[in-house]
Amino acid sequence: MQHHPQGARKSHSRRLLLTEIRRTGPVARIDLASRTGISRASVTTITADLLHEGLIEEVARKDPTPEQTRGRPRVDLKLRGAAHLVAGLKIANRAVSVALVDFEGALLGQREAPLPRPVNDARNLAEQLGQILDQALDGIGRTRGDLSAIGIGISGIVDAHRGFVYWSPSLVSRNLPFGQILTETLGKPVYLDNDTNLVALAEQSFGLGRGIDDFIVVTIESGVGMGIVLNGHLYRGTRGCGAEFGHTKVHLDGALCRCGQRGCLEAYVADYALLREAAISEPDQHPRPDEQRIEALLRAARNGQPTASSIVARAGRMFSMGLANLVNIFDPQLIILSGERMQLDHLYASEVIAAMRSSIVQIDKPPPEVMIHKWGDLMWAKGAAAFALGGVIETAIANGKPT
Amino acid sequence: MQHHPQGARKSHSRRLLLTEIRRTGPVARIDLASRTGISRASVTTITADLLHEGLIEEVARKDPTPEQTRGRPRVDLKLRGAAHLVAGLKIANRAVSVALVDFEGALLGQREAPLPRPVNDARNLAEQLGQILDQALDGIGRTRGDLSAIGIGISGIVDAHRGFVYWSPSLVSRNLPFGQILTETLGKPVYLDNDTNLVALAEQSFGLGRGIDDFIVVTIESGVGMGIVLNGHLYRGTRGCGAEFGHTKVHLDGALCRCGQRGCLEAYVADYALLREAAISEPDQHPRPDEQRIEALLRAARNGQPTASSIVARAGRMFSMGLANLVNIFDPQLIILSGERMQLDHLYASEVIAAMRSSIVQIDKPPPEVMIHKWGDLMWAKGAAAFALGGVIETAIANGKPT
Repeated sequence: MQHHPQGARKSHSRRLLLTEIRRTGPVARIDLASRTGISRASVTTITADLLHEGLIEEVARKDPTPEQTRGRPRVDLKLRGAAHLVAGLKIANRAVSVALVDFEGALLGQREAPLPRPVNDARNLAEQLGQILDQALDGIGRTRGDLSAIGIGISGIVDAHRGFVYWSPSLVSRNLPFGQILTETLGKPVYLDNDTNLVALAEQSFGLGRGIDDFIVVTIESGVGMGIVLNGHLYRGTRGCGAEFGHTKVHLDGALCRCGQRGCLEAYVADYALLREAAISEPDQHPRPDEQRIEALLRAARNGQPTASSIVARAGRMFSMGLANLVNIFDPQLIILSGERMQLDHLYASEVIAAMRSSIVQIDKPPPEVMIHKWGDLMWAKGAAAFALGGVIETAIANGKPT
Repeated sequence: MQHHPQGARKSHSRRLLLTEIRRTGPVARIDLASRTGISRASVTTITADLLHEGLIEEVARKDPTPEQTRGRPRVDLKLRGAAHLVAGLKIANRAVSVALVDFEGALLGQREAPLPRPVNDARNLAEQLGQILDQALDGIGRTRGDLSAIGIGISGIVDAHRGFVYWSPSLVSRNLPFGQILTETLGKPVYLDNDTNLVALAEQSFGLGRGIDDFIVVTIESGVGMGIVLNGHLYRGTRGCGAEFGHTKVHLDGALCRCGQRGCLEAYVADYALLREAAISEPDQHPRPDEQRIEALLRAARNGQPTASSIVARAGRMFSMGLANLVNIFDPQLIILSGERMQLDHLYASEVIAAMRSSIVQIDKPPPEVMIHKWGDLMWAKGAAAFALGGVIETAIANGKPT
């Protein structure tokens, strides 16, 4: 293995400085030195490089501290938004969302387009994504050639390091190098990850997780997902299949799950789990789409219909037990319950949070904060864009010149 | 807040170098430069300081690579064992174990002494520890004055950053600054942590976790504990009460646990849980100590007695469900089942591991490795010593001179 000590050292300092500038927004050179432990001289040299490369820019300090009001105006450094344009895409069941984001993370454009079929051949799906992406770019007067990278979130089990999809509900085949297929088809570097990990990145970059070292995001959609941020970094596990909260077992030999195993949390709280129970207690005479059946069940529960209430209450209790297990294991600062489906209020309910709090190890200190963040598909896409930005920054660090 | 950029930078490089030397044992300066990204010139300067301070020493390279056999002999750097002496203590129910360890981690002495009472006043316990510690030191011809630091492991809920004990079965009172009480009583810096975290440190420093970034240690004693190493660092949670594996819930409203809650894993697998069931099926006519009752139950299960087998088998199944949940959440490289009680073979059984493997998310890649590590109380004490060593290194980094 070849080592390049000088290169490695410069990369190390570039990484620290770019990361710190990205994390803390406009920041003075002197603060960069003290926060990173890099000498003032090196900060001056490396930030001069970064300015020259157009990755960062100087801005006048907005709120000078009293001792800084005299003398020449102080300047801060921040990322230069125009340095890079990236796209984030979220592949959902029947739709694709696109977010176009600059190097600073500002949202420049967005688009949502239908996906005709939920399960697709990999190359065909890549081509559909390309068309939707181009439409989004066209909306802001840009083209695919302007992109530095593309982040993509997909449901399933993904090894993000390799862009490898073990399994996804959106793809016909298993065990595909889907990241590579996407890079080839789209002609730009693609960063592919499990969609829930990207929600955690979005919360960290743009949302409730900003500046918080240890937090957990639980997503509640048709299934239950989870993203783990520890020490400020997304934790992905060794094989790319950690954070499978929905398939942790809450009952030995319990209810059958879609995954084929028994007792998974999803088998108690997902839509299909509620409908399975609803179907038994009150067989549906008139076949209706699942969305309507779920809505009817939740409405009946809200109106106090006993069986519906029992079904929904058990889902909430199982969910609170699962959440309590996460707290007992991670003891995080914050849990973000994150989802777009407003009708899942039974899982966001204060009784659920209270039951979680009473099921964790009790110490004489408050339990972790729980925040509820409801949003749309764009959040997933913005998380995918944040992932792509991370990749662009890694490339900028490695190259030591603009990419 | 005052910042000292030059000092911060030097500390940062000292930290990287000392950590790398500690982690990789004898290592050449040039490899330190390439691995840490610190320039060769700085490596030379800082390692000269460390040599001067007596923290590290030069050793002839044992196994030169072919191109290095010509010319002058190459030297490697390693920690200097004699630089520091630390003690590690484990407070068990009825005994205290002591390990005396040098700066390189070599075991210089050990001792186990009985603890007359399992629950103690804090100051009284600190004084008893001091006596046992002095006896151990006397055994190797050293005194307490020779110690740089003392690491101590205790059962319960401990915030290691503050040395604060929320609750411990070994202490009469709750919410005690026990680390501070120990430091005052013993007259040396004390690093206090939950005992299971220290087993994880021991596995990382001396055991099966060496060189592994992400692993989980599950300890099986009278309760079930857990230590989490992620990215090479012990993960302690925000409030100091993470990794409470024994109190994750495996059954909604399940069996009553000693902690007062219901459905905890411990309430199915701990000794008291097994005895609770055994007592119902076959009331004990002749009161016997719990140890004997447990032995009799496990023997009966091994001999195929149906009720005993059913009791023990359920414990194993609940345990495998809990383990599977850990894998589904962490996707670690390795799980170490770690304990000293040879009779708990029913939890180490291949059926339990197989059941765990069939209950995790299935991908076309092997599941994490599971290793079983049986050892005595000394392992806990060595982990406590490793924790103290970490503290000594932090002090050495901060001081920039010998402590």
